[in-house]
Amino acid sequence: MLKPKINIINLENPQHITARKIFETVNDVPLICPHGHVNPSLFSDPEAGFGDPAALFVIPDHYVLRMLISQGYSLEALGVSRKGVENRVYDPYQIWEVFCKNFSLFDGTPTGLWIENELSMVFGIDEKPDVANGRELYDALQEALESGAFSPRKLFEQFNIEVLCTTDAAVDPLSDHQGIRESGWKGKVLPTFRPDALVNIGHPSFLDHIRKLEECCHKAIKDFPSFIQAIEERRSYFKSMGAVATDHATMTAYTCRLSPERAEALFQKGLRGDIDQKEMQLFIGHMIFEMARMSLEDGLVMQWHVGSYRNHNPAVFDAYGSDLGFDIPLQVEWTRGIKPLLDAFGLDERLRLILFTLDESSYARELAPLAGVYPAVKLGPPWWFHDSPNGMRRYFECVMEIAGIDNTVGFNDDTRAFLSIPARHDLWRRMAAIWLADLVHSGQLNIDIAKQRMQDLAYGLAKRGYRLA
Amino acid sequence: MLKPKINIINLENPQHITARKIFETVNDVPLICPHGHVNPSLFSDPEAGFGDPAALFVIPDHYVLRMLISQGYSLEALGVSRKGVENRVYDPYQIWEVFCKNFSLFDGTPTGLWIENELSMVFGIDEKPDVANGRELYDALQEALESGAFSPRKLFEQFNIEVLCTTDAAVDPLSDHQGIRESGWKGKVLPTFRPDALVNIGHPSFLDHIRKLEECCHKAIKDFPSFIQAIEERRSYFKSMGAVATDHATMTAYTCRLSPERAEALFQKGLRGDIDQKEMQLFIGHMIFEMARMSLEDGLVMQWHVGSYRNHNPAVFDAYGSDLGFDIPLQVEWTRGIKPLLDAFGLDERLRLILFTLDESSYARELAPLAGVYPAVKLGPPWWFHDSPNGMRRYFECVMEIAGIDNTVGFNDDTRAFLSIPARHDLWRRMAAIWLADLVHSGQLNIDIAKQRMQDLAYGLAKRGYRLA
Amino acid sequence: MLKPKINIINLENPQHITARKIFETVNDVPLICPHGHVNPSLFSDPEAGFGDPAALFVIPDHYVLRMLISQGYSLEALGVSRKGVENRVYDPYQIWEVFCKNFSLFDGTPTGLWIENELSMVFGIDEKPDVANGRELYDALQEALESGAFSPRKLFEQFNIEVLCTTDAAVDPLSDHQGIRESGWKGKVLPTFRPDALVNIGHPSFLDHIRKLEECCHKAIKDFPSFIQAIEERRSYFKSMGAVATDHATMTAYTCRLSPERAEALFQKGLRGDIDQKEMQLFIGHMIFEMARMSLEDGLVMQWHVGSYRNHNPAVFDAYGSDLGFDIPLQVEWTRGIKPLLDAFGLDERLRLILFTLDESSYARELAPLAGVYPAVKLGPPWWFHDSPNGMRRYFECVMEIAGIDNTVGFNDDTRAFLSIPARHDLWRRMAAIWLADLVHSGQLNIDIAKQRMQDLAYGLAKRGYRLA
Repeated sequence: MLKPKINIINLENPQHITARKIFETVNDVPLICPHGHVNPSLFSDPEAGFGDPAALFVIPDHYVLRMLISQGYSLEALGVSRKGVENRVYDPYQIWEVFCKNFSLFDGTPTGLWIENELSMVFGIDEKPDVANGRELYDALQEALESGAFSPRKLFEQFNIEVLCTTDAAVDPLSDHQGIRESGWKGKVLPTFRPDALVNIGHPSFLDHIRKLEECCHKAIKDFPSFIQAIEERRSYFKSMGAVATDHATMTAYTCRLSPERAEALFQKGLRGDIDQKEMQLFIGHMIFEMARMSLEDGLVMQWHVGSYRNHNPAVFDAYGSDLGFDIPLQVEWTRGIKPLLDAFGLDERLRLILFTLDESSYARELAPLAGVYPAVKLGPPWWFHDSPNGMRRYFECVMEIAGIDNTVGFNDDTRAFLSIPARHDLWRRMAAIWLADLVHSGQLNIDIAKQRMQDLAYGLAKRGYRLA
Repeated sequence: MLKPKINIINLENPQHITARKIFETVNDVPLICPHGHVNPSLFSDPEAGFGDPAALFVIPDHYVLRMLISQGYSLEALGVSRKGVENRVYDPYQIWEVFCKNFSLFDGTPTGLWIENELSMVFGIDEKPDVANGRELYDALQEALESGAFSPRKLFEQFNIEVLCTTDAAVDPLSDHQGIRESGWKGKVLPTFRPDALVNIGHPSFLDHIRKLEECCHKAIKDFPSFIQAIEERRSYFKSMGAVATDHATMTAYTCRLSPERAEALFQKGLRGDIDQKEMQLFIGHMIFEMARMSLEDGLVMQWHVGSYRNHNPAVFDAYGSDLGFDIPLQVEWTRGIKPLLDAFGLDERLRLILFTLDESSYARELAPLAGVYPAVKLGPPWWFHDSPNGMRRYFECVMEIAGIDNTVGFNDDTRAFLSIPARHDLWRRMAAIWLADLVHSGQLNIDIAKQRMQDLAYGLAKRGYRLA
Repeated sequence: MLKPKINIINLENPQHITARKIFETVNDVPLICPHGHVNPSLFSDPEAGFGDPAALFVIPDHYVLRMLISQGYSLEALGVSRKGVENRVYDPYQIWEVFCKNFSLFDGTPTGLWIENELSMVFGIDEKPDVANGRELYDALQEALESGAFSPRKLFEQFNIEVLCTTDAAVDPLSDHQGIRESGWKGKVLPTFRPDALVNIGHPSFLDHIRKLEECCHKAIKDFPSFIQAIEERRSYFKSMGAVATDHATMTAYTCRLSPERAEALFQKGLRGDIDQKEMQLFIGHMIFEMARMSLEDGLVMQWHVGSYRNHNPAVFDAYGSDLGFDIPLQVEWTRGIKPLLDAFGLDERLRLILFTLDESSYARELAPLAGVYPAVKLGPPWWFHDSPNGMRRYFECVMEIAGIDNTVGFNDDTRAFLSIPARHDLWRRMAAIWLADLVHSGQLNIDIAKQRMQDLAYGLAKRGYRLA
């Protein structure tokens, strides 16, 4: 087991002594990673590596970028390429220096915690980056990265990962996943079907994705039935490649069931590019409904991430694109929005719908009550900004009393940063142990049951929740 | 005093040692139960009993049902009768077995806590139900229930209940309450006036309730003034039967004052059955306004429970009816919604309006500020999903700093499950003691004042808040 | 350093021992008071005093008034003058008696905590007011107030205030601030530009303020450009008088950029008094946009307080006016509302926009994510009802993990009550120390960094955040 520098569990507190005992029971339990954004090419190519320290810790990490941007650094200075620019040349040490000099910005944040623990757990570096040690850390990391000891495949095993699911566009040929299978390597890396680009009907790239879908499926998509059928074919292909789940992201939890005529009319408007805001919402609401219907039929677990206003700043989006820290949460109304979907499928256990929110006020108000009664609904772990010590604590406190532990699905690391996976699971496990210890100390659980529940929270709930065999 | 199995107060923690001292001062203080759903027939009939263990612990408890439903059990399998089916035959042991086998679903939930404590406090059973002990527990409970030692009247005294308020439809003849009074039994059981069925103008059963109201009042209800007058007569009758309060439930906190002509027009539409959504909201908003006016005049305390979307799943509602776990909270906006009512009556202390929410985000944002200034407004205790250790903790932390203790009304057990009443009050008292101990340890209250406040929270606030003599 | 009676830090708890060590490092650090409502005439007139105990503790304090009103006291009885009545005669001891008799209403509230600590820190009185000691306290306070030892200027120094910013109407001639400068007294008291009365276009007093603006600027305001130019002139005057910031309050976070023609048309409607609700919102949204543009140009820090429904009760407002406890928070939507402003200026560090909310559900959901990426945005401290032990705790827990400490601006006392300033800062510092100690005990910060962060939270963040030289 990898030991983190930041321990969270504080043995001066008697409750944490209990937490420690509970936590230790999962020391050797493997990691289940059912949702995340690791690039599968890391595993298809046996020679794949992580590049330089800037490419590893700064440039692709939107948590890091956003904090540096907030202090006035430009994306340019942080090594991010403008749209259309390929293979941009940058000076990795210069970027690393900015990062180290500003590392105190991450004091008290999960980003700081993950990075410090990643340095200690993966690279054996126990120093916090700062203005003085930047060069030394850079050289140590660079040397480690070049040593060959840190190949993704080796780390996959060292991290004790049982399964890692990636997230892949619906039109992705999954050639990296093919490559992994054909390579004979034993690591279990599975694709996840994400059709957002085909659902976001008003988006500039919608038509482009329809074209790609036509190519994938070798047929013309001229009407809504052929569109739906093509999506079904892609789901079937993903399933054949090992996928257990789909993933969907929308701004609101609105769902609706349109008549075939209405769906067709909106789809045609989308193809012509003259659909308005209200119509987009209807179309998207209907597509979510259709996706639930398909999940019920093909058994793929349906993940739904609701309430992020993506690319909030148009200037940044136009110049640099997505995933740069400019995604801002919205209030989410679930009770009315999801009702049409649940009226149709909510009682049917064949559907497994896992809900995610960035609006914590909906945990106890809407999500836990929904997950606590509808057989089809489970509640996903704290998402994104809430994947943090306090975010997890609030999640345990707000959700579990109402939904019950068994209507949740354990942890998602949800990360692009493969090397941070052990640190993220470690934090979840420690926070879960602290929460369970509190139940033990208040007399609500005995220690043996708390240890069983620790197994569930670290392993079983994710495995069962995502129907991972 | 009845001792619970799950103690909550943890004596390893110095603050809890203080909490224990504070808590012990209310050991012998009787229970005030100003709002709940216990069936008064339990007390009117000296021979009344609780049936079998399934009828006691499973079939009528929507908290239990919802959790079992969430795992795919059908209401059928849990002994719930379909609409229109009377005296359904079921095998109580089979249902009990399902309950015990699945009892771990309630780990860390208040339902689990109440049931374990109910078993220990009422039946002296200290075992947690599980797959192995189901038969043994069933037999022990069955024997106890048949022994005659557990008659509702005896338990009422054993539980040290000073007063228990039921909730009764506006058209209820209150014959059980009559029976209790005439029986000579000394237990104080009072009715509460709940006219929701007469307010929900668009509901399928509205006309049916108007007919019942006509029967009660022995006169035709043809227009809005006669409708209002009939309601006033019923309030007066309830008051003569000991009622101290009314209770109202709506989806939103919308209020308005309609002109007599507009109210009449909407009422006529309701009678004809052609009222639309927007008009329903207006009518309901006006009725809440009218109810506040009546409360101000007749002195009945007005309880208002806002924000539950009842019967969220139409298939379950159509087949089985209400109160089966499919009630999902909504976001609630109070500041604008309640303004028309408060503009008219908010400064008048003759009105006592107690507000309840399922949207905890409104505690500190709207409800505590309203209760902290308007003489007519008090804030009810944490409701339903929030009647739990963490729910209470959040309530104390979010409400008390802003509203002040004296603008709250202590505890409601709000339960149908008579046997769970001591467990529920016990939890409230312990959580209150823990909160008070925190104020003592931070220097905000001295221990003597904390003990006085414990009396208030356990007894005085409820008694004064509900104008119980 | 002044010692408070209520200590908050509880040395039985090992974490609080660490908190104490962290807290002590700022014992001698001066107070930065960048936002508040102290009357500058306290300092311009060397003979200024605080009147009698009722005038000091009751009549001007909306926190105290609201709690007493909630118990049925009339504003009349509390010494508040009706509109239009000047120099009302009241019996201060009678009011003081009501206050003392009811002081237990403030048990567990920040108002109670501030007042008890104000009595101990400023007057050396360690008794909690109650029905028995009212006379004695009154006499002690009266004697102290008459002694001359409590002049505002002396206390300013005793409190170790480095800078105190007042809040001043845009049309205020700032003669008190002139007086302070000319007096030769060294205390740094700065004005803040608050143009709300010129922005609230539909308000009855709008035209009156336009007239005043014309007088200030010695020119006619007939169109929108001359209106904007007059505002710019006033900002420039405030800046010349030492102002570092502006302050704006609106009900919603709506912003928009109107065409010059549309802005002109709405302004003319406002001058004619025939603007409707929707148009008001547009005008106000555009004015906030304009204010941001001006801030970017002149460098005044822009504070924006969003979401208070002012003067909720019309009867109280009509009879007595504003700031009497009838201001009730609203839900606030930021992500969409503020977008037009941030699209235009959010990436420009010349703008410093500090956001305040009364809707804590928006801390982690919207505000911290916005402050955590936009260079122009910082998050203000917990405001008003949330300026309390639990309010601060929630703020630290919800905001800091997401925004990072450096995107916040320390503390505002935001008070009219000059004598309460040390008590308020003391509470913030203690709560900050407790939060930091928690990070130390969980391993997230080492003690030296925690002490540096204590300096930031007590001093540096406010000083830098408000661009105080």
